[in-house]
Amino acid sequence: MTPADFPANITAALAQLDYGQAPDTLYAPIRYIMGLGGKRIRPLLTLLGAHLFTDDLSGVLKPALATEVFHNFTLLHDDLMDQAPLRRGQATVHEKWNPNVAILSGDVMLVRAYELFLDVPPALLPRILARFSQTAAEVCEGQQWDMNFETEPQVSIAQYLDMIRLKTAVLLGFCLELGARLAGASDEDAEHLRQFGTDIGLAFQLRDDLLDVYGDAATFGKRVGGDIISDKKTFLLLSAQAQASPAQQAILARHIGQPVADADAKVQAVRAIYDELEIRSQTEALINSYFQDALQHLERVAAPNERKQPLHHLALQLMDRES
Amino acid sequence: MTPADFPANITAALAQLDYGQAPDTLYAPIRYIMGLGGKRIRPLLTLLGAHLFTDDLSGVLKPALATEVFHNFTLLHDDLMDQAPLRRGQATVHEKWNPNVAILSGDVMLVRAYELFLDVPPALLPRILARFSQTAAEVCEGQQWDMNFETEPQVSIAQYLDMIRLKTAVLLGFCLELGARLAGASDEDAEHLRQFGTDIGLAFQLRDDLLDVYGDAATFGKRVGGDIISDKKTFLLLSAQAQASPAQQAILARHIGQPVADADAKVQAVRAIYDELEIRSQTEALINSYFQDALQHLERVAAPNERKQPLHHLALQLMDRES
Repeated sequence: MTPADFPANITAALAQLDYGQAPDTLYAPIRYIMGLGGKRIRPLLTLLGAHLFTDDLSGVLKPALATEVFHNFTLLHDDLMDQAPLRRGQATVHEKWNPNVAILSGDVMLVRAYELFLDVPPALLPRILARFSQTAAEVCEGQQWDMNFETEPQVSIAQYLDMIRLKTAVLLGFCLELGARLAGASDEDAEHLRQFGTDIGLAFQLRDDLLDVYGDAATFGKRVGGDIISDKKTFLLLSAQAQASPAQQAILARHIGQPVADADAKVQAVRAIYDELEIRSQTEALINSYFQDALQHLERVAAPNERKQPLHHLALQLMDRES
Repeated sequence: MTPADFPANITAALAQLDYGQAPDTLYAPIRYIMGLGGKRIRPLLTLLGAHLFTDDLSGVLKPALATEVFHNFTLLHDDLMDQAPLRRGQATVHEKWNPNVAILSGDVMLVRAYELFLDVPPALLPRILARFSQTAAEVCEGQQWDMNFETEPQVSIAQYLDMIRLKTAVLLGFCLELGARLAGASDEDAEHLRQFGTDIGLAFQLRDDLLDVYGDAATFGKRVGGDIISDKKTFLLLSAQAQASPAQQAILARHIGQPVADADAKVQAVRAIYDELEIRSQTEALINSYFQDALQHLERVAAPNERKQPLHHLALQLMDRES
């Protein structure tokens, strides 16, 4: 297995996972959401993290899949909590079946994620499961903060960054740390890779916020301006609110948290303020800062430079994506 | 720590568990449901299972608590799925907070349950977590079958017994197996204890079905006849439907699955058929049969007889309870 083969190997291994058979109402939704596809970035990060240190990836693939099953568990429960009708263009599990099926199928997915770690060498298992559990709890904390923020009148930029760190970034960091630990890397290298992944995750999520406003409608895949329409407290909105003049505050207040008469007008008005305040370049600067921090951590990892190229390349891809 | 101290030790240790702090909306519900009390039978079974083989229970208490946290996780999510307003006479988490908080707090409880196992000696950990994970998935399967049965026209007695085995009994079996394994018992002894616990769990659940119909209203704590009123497919109803004469079938069909005009009349009519068919003594015979099977497994465990007395006594208590 070389890095070029990793995606195909992950896809093939995921397709062979057996989550259980009966009752079908419990297991069909798991096969369904896992079959919806996706970039499978998390197991890819684990494999690339391990490949920095070893060519023997025989024991890495199965725990790498655990991260993807866990990620999809969070999507399943988050979609239910957010009442999202679609996931990757298909009906969500709670829509296709019902909310109870979504709750219980998700619960089993979390159990199955843990099970996929159990072939890890016993000497490594307690540490890896402690780190996975901490990460899993943090992801839940992030989702709870995200839901809390919807109804909180004041959210600071620091609170927002901490929320996306918990909800999105720590799992990417864990995936890389996992790969490193499975490959026998030092604590120091595992920690640098964890921070590389976390920084990339933060940059990735901020890029998501940016694309929502400034993305190309043709390639973005979601409605451009969706976050603005739904009053989502993104980095862009919170930054604009923090920097707006009284006149700009008044315009924002007229649109945010108010009934939407004309969605396009709302998007245009809010974006105009972002433009006036140069929120785009500020966001890009923060993304770039996280990205540079990430690269510094990668640089410090004691592994051959050519082995770092695929990770460097993937990080760049995640930053430059248009969707 | 001797068996007489176990309940107080469990209560004290549970009170000291730290599930997490922020956000409070995520962790307060966990403290709340764990604080509602209960008999704490599951950690007690683990401690008693270990005490058969050793006096050194220092490493047993923490994983024993995992079973109680897991059990309360299932109660939290089940209450949401069943839309139950009350748990132990107090508002359920989804009522006191909201459904999303119940989903996410439950998710974190499952993570915390796994974490409580991680101090288990690494040589035992993979096997114990594999058995715990299998049990956890089975409990979810049992809950899904239970929900499926609500809308299925035909449920066999065998299907019903399998459902209560999964939903209730396997966890009690696991708790005992866990104690045995932590105390270094042989696979054979661990397996006998698992079967002892599973049989006790089946008997316990059937006793629950029986109490619903024939319990003393003063001590039962729930409305007597509640299962009949809600058309719940219990062992008693399924047995009656399987044995009823055409005339009795007609009476049952008039009451089961129909709008309830007079709840007391419904309970009286269905119970009259149970009486005619001697369903009570049939249920008691099955309970007794599971109980005898349980005792035979306990007898075969290679441990001193006097050490088995607390388990024997607890099993009797669970059978003879009036609530």
